Amino acid sequence: MRKVTFGVANSLDNYIARKDHAVDWLLWGEEAASVTAKFWKTIDTVVMGRKTYEVGLKNGTTSYSGVKSYVFSRTIRESPDEGVEVISEDAAGFMRKLKNQEGKGICVMGGGELAKSLFEANLIDEIVLNIHPVLLGSGIPLFLPMVHQLDLELLECTTFKIGCVLVTYRVKH
Amino acid sequence: MRKVTFGVANSLDNYIARKDHAVDWLLWGEEAASVTAKFWKTIDTVVMGRKTYEVGLKNGTTSYSGVKSYVFSRTIRESPDEGVEVISEDAAGFMRKLKNQEGKGICVMGGGELAKSLFEANLIDEIVLNIHPVLLGSGIPLFLPMVHQLDLELLECTTFKIGCVLVTYRVKH
Repeated sequence: MRKVTFGVANSLDNYIARKDHAVDWLLWGEEAASVTAKFWKTIDTVVMGRKTYEVGLKNGTTSYSGVKSYVFSRTIRESPDEGVEVISEDAAGFMRKLKNQEGKGICVMGGGELAKSLFEANLIDEIVLNIHPVLLGSGIPLFLPMVHQLDLELLECTTFKIGCVLVTYRVKH
Repeated sequence: MRKVTFGVANSLDNYIARKDHAVDWLLWGEEAASVTAKFWKTIDTVVMGRKTYEVGLKNGTTSYSGVKSYVFSRTIRESPDEGVEVISEDAAGFMRKLKNQEGKGICVMGGGELAKSLFEANLIDEIVLNIHPVLLGSGIPLFLPMVHQLDLELLECTTFKIGCVLVTYRVKH
């Protein structure tokens, strides 16, 4: 079974973007770049919700080279990019099939609704958060309320010189 | 000027208690006990909101020995405990006076509304979170939406064997 990782950068008050979707507060550096490059070698698939996809489109990122991208949406039919497939069926059902296919790891991008539905369906195996040293005060929430508790095991915790804390958890199924 | 620390244990999805105020998910151990004991030596004053105080009362904690406690409330008049003073005036105004008095550090307990008003008035100097390895899914939120962003400096990050991550930040005023 392929490993599904929910990976995202967040503020300490758990926002993934400002209300207008701006991510100008994100900090980047050699350490984050090195961790990210290492992680991308372990995956071959990215899934995201429609909103995350549209934010990417606006910022000029339509797909990732060497990685198959799926966008869950009931409103858009297809993507302008060949590397991106739009999925209109139920996200949890599709992810269950994807997990059972041969392949490398799968990364869930964004947050909010897609993450919530996949967490609730027990389909996420690991959580990687890059916690930024800021309280944004408002924005797009990382976690939405969920119907049940999920227990986690801390696998790793690293700090970056820039002040970010990178935590990796295994979801106890 | 006395240092004001906002210290709390939270879930990874930033709840400080379940909806019914239960904190049965909190993990305790030698490491947490040692950090807490060390911290208590640096303070002589605790402030909290009425709700946090009432949860404490229910759990049998009315005051802390050797520490002066203030409870902000417009609805209760006095506490059954001598060590606890009820403050009906504006929390930010009172805290400003308290910070300018002689004394050791001040700890803000709880979260939600009191923390929000003190953060917004720029009266909190440090944040200490004991991030627990759990997604509660729902509960009493640690941070409420705030009118402005607060930039932080990561001072320390420690992990406990039990899977908690203790982070300490300085609030950049």
